[in-house]
Amino acid sequence: MATLIAPTSFSPGADAEALRKAFQGWGTDEKTVIAILGHRNVYQRQQIRKSYEEIYQEDLIKRLESELSGDFERAVYRWMLEHADRDAVLANVAIKSGSKGYHVIVEIACVLSPEEVLAVRRAYHNRYKRSLEEDIATNTTGHLRQLLVGLVTSFRYGGDEINAKLAKSEADILHESVKEKKGNHEEAIRILTTRSKTQLMATFNCYRDDHGTSITKKLLDNASDDFHKALHTAIRCLNDHNKYYEKVLRNAIKRVGTDEDAITRVVVSRAEKDMKHIKEVYYKRNSVHLEDALAKEISGDYKKFILTLLGKKD
Amino acid sequence: MATLIAPTSFSPGADAEALRKAFQGWGTDEKTVIAILGHRNVYQRQQIRKSYEEIYQEDLIKRLESELSGDFERAVYRWMLEHADRDAVLANVAIKSGSKGYHVIVEIACVLSPEEVLAVRRAYHNRYKRSLEEDIATNTTGHLRQLLVGLVTSFRYGGDEINAKLAKSEADILHESVKEKKGNHEEAIRILTTRSKTQLMATFNCYRDDHGTSITKKLLDNASDDFHKALHTAIRCLNDHNKYYEKVLRNAIKRVGTDEDAITRVVVSRAEKDMKHIKEVYYKRNSVHLEDALAKEISGDYKKFILTLLGKKD
Repeated sequence: MATLIAPTSFSPGADAEALRKAFQGWGTDEKTVIAILGHRNVYQRQQIRKSYEEIYQEDLIKRLESELSGDFERAVYRWMLEHADRDAVLANVAIKSGSKGYHVIVEIACVLSPEEVLAVRRAYHNRYKRSLEEDIATNTTGHLRQLLVGLVTSFRYGGDEINAKLAKSEADILHESVKEKKGNHEEAIRILTTRSKTQLMATFNCYRDDHGTSITKKLLDNASDDFHKALHTAIRCLNDHNKYYEKVLRNAIKRVGTDEDAITRVVVSRAEKDMKHIKEVYYKRNSVHLEDALAKEISGDYKKFILTLLGKKD
Repeated sequence: MATLIAPTSFSPGADAEALRKAFQGWGTDEKTVIAILGHRNVYQRQQIRKSYEEIYQEDLIKRLESELSGDFERAVYRWMLEHADRDAVLANVAIKSGSKGYHVIVEIACVLSPEEVLAVRRAYHNRYKRSLEEDIATNTTGHLRQLLVGLVTSFRYGGDEINAKLAKSEADILHESVKEKKGNHEEAIRILTTRSKTQLMATFNCYRDDHGTSITKKLLDNASDDFHKALHTAIRCLNDHNKYYEKVLRNAIKRVGTDEDAITRVVVSRAEKDMKHIKEVYYKRNSVHLEDALAKEISGDYKKFILTLLGKKD
């Protein structure tokens, strides 16, 4: 469930006017920006943007970029984009940042539904005049390329059918591939990039039953190169993305010099989807509420904005 | 332009009744079946099927299958399916027939628009409860798998922008890959499976300018294994699919023991699209009309049906 608190009725025109007022005069009234945009869902934000454009002949997102700064600006900018468009931007930034960005591409490809991934690919066309897979393929090689391109281009079957025999035999193939670095990666890539999520879940369960440990634990021992790291991320995102996001947040908070980019990415992407569940997983794992842990590490308007998206009452 | 001649107005109910009548009694009245279904476009055929089902509580396609036989039955069956669904069936049959079917998969992936390929992938989900790429990947390996899966999963950018510098450098990469069997196939696969059709056209033109021969001619010298054959088909379909289809028909007609399956596939797939153009290309290349060439090689109701789809007046 979502953590975002948005009103059922609102006036895009009134919001646009209030934002305009917040921009005027000396300095920006960030409090108002947070009070409005931190409490509007994706459809409402698009309507506000449209209203603002109609009334003031100015793009609200561009104006926000010039009014705000730092982590707060980046968070509001990403929050303002429609979901698929935001993920297209995230993917593009990730591609450009090379090795450090592969996990973001894997996240988008493995967490979203097949139809949502498709929407991101369409948004990528519109924004960059190239295909997502084109840019990934140009910037990677070998097994890493095969895996990343395979994940973003896959259109998995969404049904609930499970082939138990297949799950067993493919768990063995994955085991062979994972246990040594020179394993049969082509087959592991085939399985992870084409099977339905339900089938993969059954395969991961078989792996645990037959080999006494989870495939992610086993992979972690070998996850030293980019390919194995991406493989590890893919399996975790496909298997249980809430647990995966909990760990992204945990690492971002723990790190010396907090990783605001990761915090923004997870909160902005999931606040309207399943952030409540991620918060529960976080509390269960850390015995401290996510908001409290974050409050100690981030600050200023950025902190206020992120906590608002996490459902903090004003 | 299409060769199919269909009325602008028609009554699905009356057609359903006339077909029912044609099925009754001793033997089937094939003439009526051809006169009706050979003159209805895809929307009209779907309406007739719906009407028939409503009136007689029976699936028209199933009934047609039991009434007709041989090449005629197969042609009518494929003709009755909605486009994406038909291509899903063709792809599935192709996958099951292995080496002999790869060109059909390549055709579907490279001739159709990115949105049309997507529709086929959706239809494949519905029909087979698996993804198209899943079935291809399970039945192939190595470079052939990479190429086929890459082609069907690609969602190419559809714009007209051309990067001339890129076309030149990638023409060189293709040249390196094509000139010897042990070339850099990974890069050739990357280019052919991700670049937009317009960009690829520019790349193929660069190839011809810089290397004095077309890439398909060069490839043909090496096209002995399945991978190189598929590569050759892909480039021909991407470059000029009407020329490609002309050759499929020419070979099907020339072959000792005519290749009815190929004739059916091309005519049924293109009669509502660009069959007129394919006929022109055929005449230009062979100095004989496609209908006349076909009339000598095929026979019976199948012949009548195919010629009807090719625009022959009754």
